[in-house]
Amino acid sequence: MNVSRPTVHPVEAPPLIDGGLHNGPRTRMKDVQGMPGTRGGLTLRLIQCAFGVVSVCVMATTRDFRTVTAFCYLVIAVGLQVLWSLSLALVDVYALLVRRSLRKRVIVRLFAIGDGITSTLTFAAACASAGITVLIGNDLNRCSVNHCTRFETATAMAFISWFAMTPSFLMNFWSLASP
Amino acid sequence: MNVSRPTVHPVEAPPLIDGGLHNGPRTRMKDVQGMPGTRGGLTLRLIQCAFGVVSVCVMATTRDFRTVTAFCYLVIAVGLQVLWSLSLALVDVYALLVRRSLRKRVIVRLFAIGDGITSTLTFAAACASAGITVLIGNDLNRCSVNHCTRFETATAMAFISWFAMTPSFLMNFWSLASP
Repeated sequence: MNVSRPTVHPVEAPPLIDGGLHNGPRTRMKDVQGMPGTRGGLTLRLIQCAFGVVSVCVMATTRDFRTVTAFCYLVIAVGLQVLWSLSLALVDVYALLVRRSLRKRVIVRLFAIGDGITSTLTFAAACASAGITVLIGNDLNRCSVNHCTRFETATAMAFISWFAMTPSFLMNFWSLASP
Repeated sequence: MNVSRPTVHPVEAPPLIDGGLHNGPRTRMKDVQGMPGTRGGLTLRLIQCAFGVVSVCVMATTRDFRTVTAFCYLVIAVGLQVLWSLSLALVDVYALLVRRSLRKRVIVRLFAIGDGITSTLTFAAACASAGITVLIGNDLNRCSVNHCTRFETATAMAFISWFAMTPSFLMNFWSLASP
């Protein structure tokens, strides 16, 4: 019965060394919480939105905020930032629901530029409002005829919103520079 | 004469593939003007110093800047930034004279953190001063009893100094993220 029979020798497919090398950094970057499309990133966006909305509402409910340019600018800049953060929060929710990665170069670049512009505008508005609030409250002592507490609250909320914006910008910029 | 003679076959040394791969990005990064230890970097530092010094001098020569907290803060923050930029300008001059590279990871990290802190402080001071200058000049129309022109000049110079600081920070941060 020495009949030659064809036999099948299962051979393991060799590991794709090139692919592995190229995918190494990508896999590492995916794990970083706070990036777009992660739960940490969504949390940061929601914090930015929440504090931004409180800041705009508190400032807009004072009667005389329209007489000061910096306070008007705060409402506009933080309002713009709330819209931006809300849009990216919705994108994050979509990415988490369909389990889709947002780590494409063009998307990260767009997010980094948008975060950079909106966070700079928010920080500028918060600093200008802080300067005027300190001028009214400490330097001129005119809190009796002004809504100092509301101005301070709106400024503080804008600062916290900017503070939550900074990690998003730095992470996007960092991942843009990484290969 | 069939004597066996030892012969020498010269063999070319194989190229160092690993070394070549690792040195690739470094060589690319070295050429970027504006990094520490380059002529572009030194130019940026000198611009930061020059506009910062003008800003501090113009603000400090007004009599009543001490009565406004934001203007005092501008003098302190921009003064600190001038000292930082001057120190790094001297380091750049040293690196250019002895032709030494400043592209060590620990040095770039130190520069990025320092640039980030000082540029944020300068921008905050410039924004606060801008808010008060606009309040005095436009909202209250009290330029007749205040040095509006000097306040505006000092604020503008601080903004230009911050504007020259931003590329230094972004380049250091970028090269920190690059492998």
